[in-house]
Amino acid sequence: MPEPTLEEIMQPESIAVVGASKIGIGANYISALLKLNFKGKIYPVHPKYQEVFGMKCYAGIYDIPGNIDLVISLISATQALKLVDDCAQKGVKCIHFYTARFAETGRPEAIELEKEILRRAKSAGIRIIGPNCMGIYYPAWGISWEPTMSAIPGPMGFISQSGSVAYETIGTAEIRGLHYSKGFSYGNAIDFNECDYLEYLSQDAETKLITMYVEGIRDGKRFLEILRKTTMKKPVIILKGGRGKSGTRATASHTASLAGSMEVWNTAMKQAGAISVSDLEELLDVAAAFYFLPPAFRNHVGIAGGGGGGSVIAADVCEEAGLDVIPLPDEIRAELRKQNNPIWDWVTNPVDFSIALKDAVSGYITKMMVNNPNFDLSIIFIDPQGHGKVTSSDVLLSDFPLDDLKIKPLLVVLLDRGRSFKDTAGETNKQFIEISTKLIEKRIPAYISVARAANAAVKMINYYKKQRADLTQ
Amino acid sequence: MPEPTLEEIMQPESIAVVGASKIGIGANYISALLKLNFKGKIYPVHPKYQEVFGMKCYAGIYDIPGNIDLVISLISATQALKLVDDCAQKGVKCIHFYTARFAETGRPEAIELEKEILRRAKSAGIRIIGPNCMGIYYPAWGISWEPTMSAIPGPMGFISQSGSVAYETIGTAEIRGLHYSKGFSYGNAIDFNECDYLEYLSQDAETKLITMYVEGIRDGKRFLEILRKTTMKKPVIILKGGRGKSGTRATASHTASLAGSMEVWNTAMKQAGAISVSDLEELLDVAAAFYFLPPAFRNHVGIAGGGGGGSVIAADVCEEAGLDVIPLPDEIRAELRKQNNPIWDWVTNPVDFSIALKDAVSGYITKMMVNNPNFDLSIIFIDPQGHGKVTSSDVLLSDFPLDDLKIKPLLVVLLDRGRSFKDTAGETNKQFIEISTKLIEKRIPAYISVARAANAAVKMINYYKKQRADLTQ
Repeated sequence: MPEPTLEEIMQPESIAVVGASKIGIGANYISALLKLNFKGKIYPVHPKYQEVFGMKCYAGIYDIPGNIDLVISLISATQALKLVDDCAQKGVKCIHFYTARFAETGRPEAIELEKEILRRAKSAGIRIIGPNCMGIYYPAWGISWEPTMSAIPGPMGFISQSGSVAYETIGTAEIRGLHYSKGFSYGNAIDFNECDYLEYLSQDAETKLITMYVEGIRDGKRFLEILRKTTMKKPVIILKGGRGKSGTRATASHTASLAGSMEVWNTAMKQAGAISVSDLEELLDVAAAFYFLPPAFRNHVGIAGGGGGGSVIAADVCEEAGLDVIPLPDEIRAELRKQNNPIWDWVTNPVDFSIALKDAVSGYITKMMVNNPNFDLSIIFIDPQGHGKVTSSDVLLSDFPLDDLKIKPLLVVLLDRGRSFKDTAGETNKQFIEISTKLIEKRIPAYISVARAANAAVKMINYYKKQRADLTQ
Repeated sequence: MPEPTLEEIMQPESIAVVGASKIGIGANYISALLKLNFKGKIYPVHPKYQEVFGMKCYAGIYDIPGNIDLVISLISATQALKLVDDCAQKGVKCIHFYTARFAETGRPEAIELEKEILRRAKSAGIRIIGPNCMGIYYPAWGISWEPTMSAIPGPMGFISQSGSVAYETIGTAEIRGLHYSKGFSYGNAIDFNECDYLEYLSQDAETKLITMYVEGIRDGKRFLEILRKTTMKKPVIILKGGRGKSGTRATASHTASLAGSMEVWNTAMKQAGAISVSDLEELLDVAAAFYFLPPAFRNHVGIAGGGGGGSVIAADVCEEAGLDVIPLPDEIRAELRKQNNPIWDWVTNPVDFSIALKDAVSGYITKMMVNNPNFDLSIIFIDPQGHGKVTSSDVLLSDFPLDDLKIKPLLVVLLDRGRSFKDTAGETNKQFIEISTKLIEKRIPAYISVARAANAAVKMINYYKKQRADLTQ
């Protein structure tokens, strides 16, 4: 009998949570399944409890009446072998070991135990997710590991060696309006590994965009092959952990996986068409651009909304990121002159809003830029804290006809100077949230600084350029 | 009679605001002086008003009974020459021209007008600040240009070619707990220029740290000489606007000053010991490190507070910024073993808080790192959004004995994933503000990401290293 594939495991009809509890991690998994409305059967398992969250709690796997598709193991490492044996008898398809303290500790006996778990699982045809990981996140199927995690499905997939990175990314993504199809926190990956997860998401129709956090790769050749095929179809954003000597040391402590030379890695990623990022902020910056924006294949940017020096710095930062801040095309200047706009000979790109008086209609100039074929994308500024007083989000947004500006990639810099002690009533915070919500509704990605917006735009454009070149070869 | 110096101008006993008004910019300057409790005489001037803010309003400069030390001109460019003539008759020491639309427009007649203003002022012994700028900010003397600007004095000085950059920087600095001695928004600088302002702040005992925003430099040789002397005494952080081709074009529009080759500029800055930054965020990141921290001369960093992959990424980012994330010294490991700490053989630097269980006393390990002479500085994480629920700021801070950790430079990464729509009641926002306030009180700089904290630390250390090397030569 061939062993089950990820496809066969991803839509379990029944899940047993071994180590279920009324508090802590044992409660989190159960309440997450309930919260996300998991449609299958949930079997809590714990010898100490009769009942958990109003459901019957079983003393062991063997006591459960029906079939079990997926077992989530929250018990300690010392009990793991016994669980595998019980699952073998019960005909379980897959065990996800949240259970940790295996190879990641670097201790010989823990490494040996991990190997023995795999041996016994293999001989019983049981697949393993983990150990030392959070497991599957699949909101549309009702699977998650924390009741606070978003229940809203979306087109983004993730693969993360680290559970904390996965959790942090999902939470931050939700704040930015980005939602997930399926995701995997995979930890030590003794059975299913990053190659399997990537291959699965590559073929998954619900996933349009993939983000990865990896520290080490087990099978470099296979990984690069799958990666190359995947990036022809959808963007893959990869954050590599363990890039330096200290990071390598830390990954050794964290997951005991091999971290190779960064030079080799970077070349391989470039050739494979993957998008490399260096921290979680950048990962989501770039993801937001792909998630919300239409493609662009050239880097001529129109910038508007800053004032004075702010425009100058914005232009510098955009150019240093790799955008081309082209001059204002002559036809726009001619049109402004025709309209007797008093700044026709003075205004440039970036459009400095401090010179563009109300009667000069700044938003109108920005719209002309968007409609001009010389520009490939736009970056505009919205500055809720800029005037020292709180104005309504409608007023702040009224400078720009956002719907008209969306015919090309449009990135908003929603300048945030930080959470101010002056905002005692939370009005500024509320306004930021209002504007963010409106931008998300309009599918416009927002960034807190020009540098971050420009970087995301460049990485997006470079991906589409390479993809098109590869496809037309 | 020699012309007045900046020293002689900086503490005016009387200020006439020409173009005073009840609303708009004419009101801002007056209400700023009132708000900051300017001790000298304020003379509002406007032919249309009898009274402004309860003060007598004069029809013209010539109507004012007493002496006038400083005139702030808010009138239009077309009236500027007449004002200079009036001021000459009245014996005014200095005019600050907020008035704009001169050389920055690029228009020949505007450039000529600017020159004529300078000629007439020179012949009357009047000094000029600007035109096209916000002028002096000197909270301890009660001078500001916006009533919303901080009244709290501090040891930081600024010099900014751009008024909007100055305003934005001051507002953001206040949020971060950074306050100013004196500052200048200097615009087109037809008389006093960046050299004069820098020389003044260099010699100013109230100023311990200088930030600059410059687009072009008029007298490169003099500027570099003053800069070199200044950096031997105090750090100078410089943001150069107009670094690329587009930026150069934008500066041409904005202030019509010369922007040179960036290669030459970067070399000159390095030799002069100035600290170069590329945007406002970075400028204040670095300023906060100098403002709050004791010096460090080596880059061995101890990192603590992140979990799993977060620690790995933190180590990578710190190393890429130029910090040395050294391994945990043997003596710390030996001490942990002696205490039967269960993670003695496993914990490393960064200290992964997800493995450091409560009984392993994470804060204690961090304190051991700080007390160990191998470490020169520490970076710790505080993550208010990390647990999906709001805990009190005391609980969040309780992981770390902050006062004990402050014996070396300590930078906090107060991770901010963004303003979340889930924070409808503003509780998370409030908590961020509470923690920020506590950190400011303890004089600990906070950063929203590891990358930004690490970068600030590296720039600070490099400055002190060079300064010490230069002084001991």
